[in-house]
Amino acid sequence: MEVAEAAGVSASTVSRILNGTARVSADKRKAVEKAIVDLNFTPNVLAQSLKRGQSKTIGVITQAVDSPFFTETLKGIEDGISGSGFAALIVSGHWNPDEEAERVGLLMARKVDGIIIVSGNIPDDQIVRFSEHVPMVATGHGCESDRLRAIRVDNVWGGYRATKHLIELGHRQIAHIAGIPTLTDATDRLAGYKQALEEAGIPYNDALVVQGDFRESGGLLCANQLLDRGVPFTALFAANDQTAYGARLAFFRRGIRVPDDISLIGFDDLPGSPYTTPPLTTIRQPVYEIGRMAAAAMLALIGNKPFKIEPPQLELTIRETTRRLR
Amino acid sequence: MEVAEAAGVSASTVSRILNGTARVSADKRKAVEKAIVDLNFTPNVLAQSLKRGQSKTIGVITQAVDSPFFTETLKGIEDGISGSGFAALIVSGHWNPDEEAERVGLLMARKVDGIIIVSGNIPDDQIVRFSEHVPMVATGHGCESDRLRAIRVDNVWGGYRATKHLIELGHRQIAHIAGIPTLTDATDRLAGYKQALEEAGIPYNDALVVQGDFRESGGLLCANQLLDRGVPFTALFAANDQTAYGARLAFFRRGIRVPDDISLIGFDDLPGSPYTTPPLTTIRQPVYEIGRMAAAAMLALIGNKPFKIEPPQLELTIRETTRRLR
Repeated sequence: MEVAEAAGVSASTVSRILNGTARVSADKRKAVEKAIVDLNFTPNVLAQSLKRGQSKTIGVITQAVDSPFFTETLKGIEDGISGSGFAALIVSGHWNPDEEAERVGLLMARKVDGIIIVSGNIPDDQIVRFSEHVPMVATGHGCESDRLRAIRVDNVWGGYRATKHLIELGHRQIAHIAGIPTLTDATDRLAGYKQALEEAGIPYNDALVVQGDFRESGGLLCANQLLDRGVPFTALFAANDQTAYGARLAFFRRGIRVPDDISLIGFDDLPGSPYTTPPLTTIRQPVYEIGRMAAAAMLALIGNKPFKIEPPQLELTIRETTRRLR
Repeated sequence: MEVAEAAGVSASTVSRILNGTARVSADKRKAVEKAIVDLNFTPNVLAQSLKRGQSKTIGVITQAVDSPFFTETLKGIEDGISGSGFAALIVSGHWNPDEEAERVGLLMARKVDGIIIVSGNIPDDQIVRFSEHVPMVATGHGCESDRLRAIRVDNVWGGYRATKHLIELGHRQIAHIAGIPTLTDATDRLAGYKQALEEAGIPYNDALVVQGDFRESGGLLCANQLLDRGVPFTALFAANDQTAYGARLAFFRRGIRVPDDISLIGFDDLPGSPYTTPPLTTIRQPVYEIGRMAAAAMLALIGNKPFKIEPPQLELTIRETTRRLR
């Protein structure tokens, strides 16, 4: 007996339910699901796809599954491929270029139809070489080729805009906690910081810049370091929101009020940032939209369809941690 | 020419790199990766595995890829299967039992070797039926069978311990923002809250309990609702940390100090909770350990090996949002 017959639905409904290309009513889904179990029927979609040269999976290499930043992008990717019949095979590269390359190899061995690399440290030329074998989309990278699309935001502009916001509020002693120095995201933001200072005629001061790690613990340590140096500052640009959360706690511990004593701006606009006390001023990264765009670009590549990438825009999001210098 | 020859390593090294069963030096990995690309060689691990009846993938059904709660569990699962040669195929059920059942069908169609369900609303008896066809591990569920392992924490105890902590500090007017009412996690915590009140001889007051949604926005709304009711309270037990973040902002907006005016305790201990201002007192869920245990239980099931589940323990984590009633 066939699943369709047992479930009392058409064969095309079964097929659409199984390959995920259509939304059907809950009742129909339940009937089909029951029929699959009752008949002990597991259609070998995979074997069929392999015959057609497709595994119907898109490999996704992310850097850390526990980062609130990347999970938003993953959600965008997931929503973007939803209904396409593809599933995401998510693996983590942990910011290690060798591990990332190994994961690419693993995904290729699993016959994925395409690979999306979310940020990371793998060199651009290696991504280009991989793209000769499997369609690739890379976020946070700048390289392009026939079978490779890149999506990146303008981090120099973001660092510039964050710093300029503080300057517009009258601040001139502006500290910066930088990100991981091997990542262009971090060095671009630092470059933007310098550019805004220069434009305003404020001399760059090494004593006001410390090296963070894009995490809360680094933000806490670095803010303490800055305060211990004794060089006065009235505003702080943190390289990302997690860094800003840590710095905020360091200020809180010393009775330094935000924004009354020090203005604080982050970068990313994580889901928790509107709920800090007070809510964090930040540069909003369209992380979800980046994921959607990566998925759309990948589906277009796989389907040999044209696709124009509009680089997602950063946006200054003013909340309550920055104020005019008194 | 063979990959091993081109890379100058042994065939077994290539195989171990490709199936992920061993850590090798960065140099060797690089050489193999280069050889794969240079030779345009993509070993069909999948086809080989299918012949052996294995796809070397473990399906993971999570509820929302953007939840900080589940991402910790995913990291535990990922670390737990790392080096086993299996990869995780992660899909999202979005708390919808029909969608979850559909995803199970999809994963079965993809010939996964096992399925881990992370929480969710799928009925226990359906999970048991699915487990007749594929090994399953379910977290946040209580059902067991030959091919099904369940991992859950004692949420009644957690709700009881949180409330008792407030009572021990002298509070008697204790409000509660509950979680999603269809989830046993939420109703168990509410039951624990009631149990602690009863034990202390404090009458349960309906006016001090509101229905949240496990999210920051719900916490903000519910705390405002509680304050608007005008029934005084000196402490609040929020059903999870995200709810506590939202409530904290509601108090901040009205100039109510935490913990000076109101003590606040959450549930979960999210990565951000040690960095709120002040750092959040909460019930720590071993979410990462739950993921590790789910992975270990699954690998044991697949390998037909015995495995004893030790239920992970909740833990009261006292930080700075709770204080003795003055």
